[in-house]
Amino acid sequence: MEKAIEELRTKGKAAKEASRHLAYISTEIKNQALYNIADDLLARKDEILAANQKDCQAAEASGMDSAMLDRLMLDESRLEGIAGDVRAVAALPDPVGETFDMRTLSNGLIISRRRVPLGVIGSMYESRPNVTVDISVLCLKSGNAVILRGGKEALNSNSALATVVQDAVTRAGVPEGAVQFIDNTDRELVNHLLKMNDFIDMFIPRGGEGLIRHVIETATMPVVSGGIGVCHTYIDSNADIEKAVPIVFNAKVQRPTVCNALDTVLVHADIAERSLPPMAAELGKAGVEIRCDQRSLAILKSNKSLKLTAATEEDWGKEFLALIAAVKVVDSLDEALEHIRTYGSGHSEAIITENYSAAMRFLDEVDAACVYINASTRFTDGGQFGLGAEVGISTGKMHARGPLGLKELTTYKWIIFGSGQVRE
Amino acid sequence: MEKAIEELRTKGKAAKEASRHLAYISTEIKNQALYNIADDLLARKDEILAANQKDCQAAEASGMDSAMLDRLMLDESRLEGIAGDVRAVAALPDPVGETFDMRTLSNGLIISRRRVPLGVIGSMYESRPNVTVDISVLCLKSGNAVILRGGKEALNSNSALATVVQDAVTRAGVPEGAVQFIDNTDRELVNHLLKMNDFIDMFIPRGGEGLIRHVIETATMPVVSGGIGVCHTYIDSNADIEKAVPIVFNAKVQRPTVCNALDTVLVHADIAERSLPPMAAELGKAGVEIRCDQRSLAILKSNKSLKLTAATEEDWGKEFLALIAAVKVVDSLDEALEHIRTYGSGHSEAIITENYSAAMRFLDEVDAACVYINASTRFTDGGQFGLGAEVGISTGKMHARGPLGLKELTTYKWIIFGSGQVRE
Repeated sequence: MEKAIEELRTKGKAAKEASRHLAYISTEIKNQALYNIADDLLARKDEILAANQKDCQAAEASGMDSAMLDRLMLDESRLEGIAGDVRAVAALPDPVGETFDMRTLSNGLIISRRRVPLGVIGSMYESRPNVTVDISVLCLKSGNAVILRGGKEALNSNSALATVVQDAVTRAGVPEGAVQFIDNTDRELVNHLLKMNDFIDMFIPRGGEGLIRHVIETATMPVVSGGIGVCHTYIDSNADIEKAVPIVFNAKVQRPTVCNALDTVLVHADIAERSLPPMAAELGKAGVEIRCDQRSLAILKSNKSLKLTAATEEDWGKEFLALIAAVKVVDSLDEALEHIRTYGSGHSEAIITENYSAAMRFLDEVDAACVYINASTRFTDGGQFGLGAEVGISTGKMHARGPLGLKELTTYKWIIFGSGQVRE
Repeated sequence: MEKAIEELRTKGKAAKEASRHLAYISTEIKNQALYNIADDLLARKDEILAANQKDCQAAEASGMDSAMLDRLMLDESRLEGIAGDVRAVAALPDPVGETFDMRTLSNGLIISRRRVPLGVIGSMYESRPNVTVDISVLCLKSGNAVILRGGKEALNSNSALATVVQDAVTRAGVPEGAVQFIDNTDRELVNHLLKMNDFIDMFIPRGGEGLIRHVIETATMPVVSGGIGVCHTYIDSNADIEKAVPIVFNAKVQRPTVCNALDTVLVHADIAERSLPPMAAELGKAGVEIRCDQRSLAILKSNKSLKLTAATEEDWGKEFLALIAAVKVVDSLDEALEHIRTYGSGHSEAIITENYSAAMRFLDEVDAACVYINASTRFTDGGQFGLGAEVGISTGKMHARGPLGLKELTTYKWIIFGSGQVRE
């Protein structure tokens, strides 16, 4: 263990050293590094796929379920997809060096804020090996060094991908040490990593609730996290049902396993009898299980083709990540707001309404990363928002909220041009 | 203790409740609250000064030194100063509600970020009672509720000031509970406060290194801190000595007890013999003790009127907060950069040079909240930077760096205007 900790600290130190140079290397070098990665992912596909094969075989032997196995698996077409994403990041504007809030003070000092990288970003993540490439690429483009610690089940894949990335970026002239990969998956070692605030400026956990909670409680450096999305869609009394039904359907069904998928529908009592039956019928066709409060159950129970169950207290505020939705009838916008305040996770919340004042109140009063009027919460995504790509979605309030794109991986420093000024 | 913790949590809950309404009350009400505070500080000066008198007498009896006593003491003219500062904050633009990065996506969604308050800000601070008013006012103006925990030695003063603030803001229509004051100065209770991340969104410690470290290590909510400034001024080989001497003098002498005051002068060897004697002579006139490395000692020792001592390793990276400066001769800009990297605290660093490339390299490579060319580090201050006022100076990289003004006490939420959009 002593030796493993020492190795870990050596990697941390190397990343910190590299980050100093990375902070001001040219956009051209960074982009070249990214294009090299994209090329090499395909040129070196044999070694990557062979490593991935090992992980998949071990996972299968250990009885991993097919959904998880599918997340773990790489093939040529997936590598092409990853390479395409890398090229897309290369094509994004470089956030580093942007200068803003510039002004000349009355004493002649010219002050401004200059956007600079954070330094070293640490990340711990689960299963999908493409995260190794995604996070590396976003960190590099934003001028940050990165320390990666992937899951045990993808160790061979992640290690192969990290090697490809390291070789590709060094060839472009990016300082060696900019991408560090931890190939020791000892759980104890993670706690040492999370205390390395002398080398790591920000930590991004990506994975389930357990992993995220552990990182927040253990880390001594700032953590930007999220991913847990308990998302509500509120159907106001003045909602257009023609909009409400497809929005709810899309938010729940289009990709139920992700954090911006709908969990709970709140329906105003005045529109419940008209809106719930067609909405439930649509959800039912997609196999969605509906957990109803008493009032919605009374409205829906005559439709025998639906999978209905009575909701329990635990269903409110639950992130289902599956084809399950909770439904509750409320008597007012106030009650809906109160429910969201109590059970929401600050991720994405929507109102469906044709009433202007209700829409504006919802925007004002809902405290979440993303607040929608008449749209599906599924849009909460760096790509959809035009940020190009994201390392995750923050449900915290500090530093950055919602999708974390390139700009959100930076900070600023004040730069002051003087000509001999002293303070009176 | 049980009861004290319960009371603490009641205050936390009340602040959280108040913060919901504070988030969207009008600028007019917030400004009226601030003008009320300014008026009442003067109208109720007798009770404030009587409370302060108690603190000062107790402090004197306990043998508090005169500098500390002076910081604790209030009189009518100081109250007028505080009231003036409050009115200045009222006159600043309201950061809340500003909408930025608005764009219309190809699917017709209109997305933007809207600036919103953080929610509830906790603060723990030492001695100066004006901090009670300063922090309250900045938090209120930026739409945040606040929980204040001042030092034991200023308990009566802080309590009186907090009462005046609470009465004044409630009269203006600010939700009751927006300003919470903790009058129990039990040290154990602070640790409970620092774990109240269910009610407090951000914590700002203001005080000495011990207090700040304790808060960072204990708090479960994000902490924005700083205040510790180990500030260097580097005299490059091409420096204009006519600028260098007054800048160093100002940075060290104008107010030596604050975080942006100079601690160490680094001098390029090529200019050391010409620049150090006049600089040391000026510093010497103000009674500054100079802790010299061997080479600067050799240059200066002939001037018998100077207070010179040999620097020890501990003098590098030390925040003196007194009329003491360390001086070191370096052989290159690289050596200066390396010294700052090793010993700086990421606060404020300056280069004095007429060489353009050296200036630009210093700006690029120094990783600090504020980087100066040819100016005194004493300018690092919200007021000086045109932010109007500040709750502190952050030396961290996340969320905000340097002076924390009104905007830095806010976050944003994404607001999305749709017309029925669903994700493909």
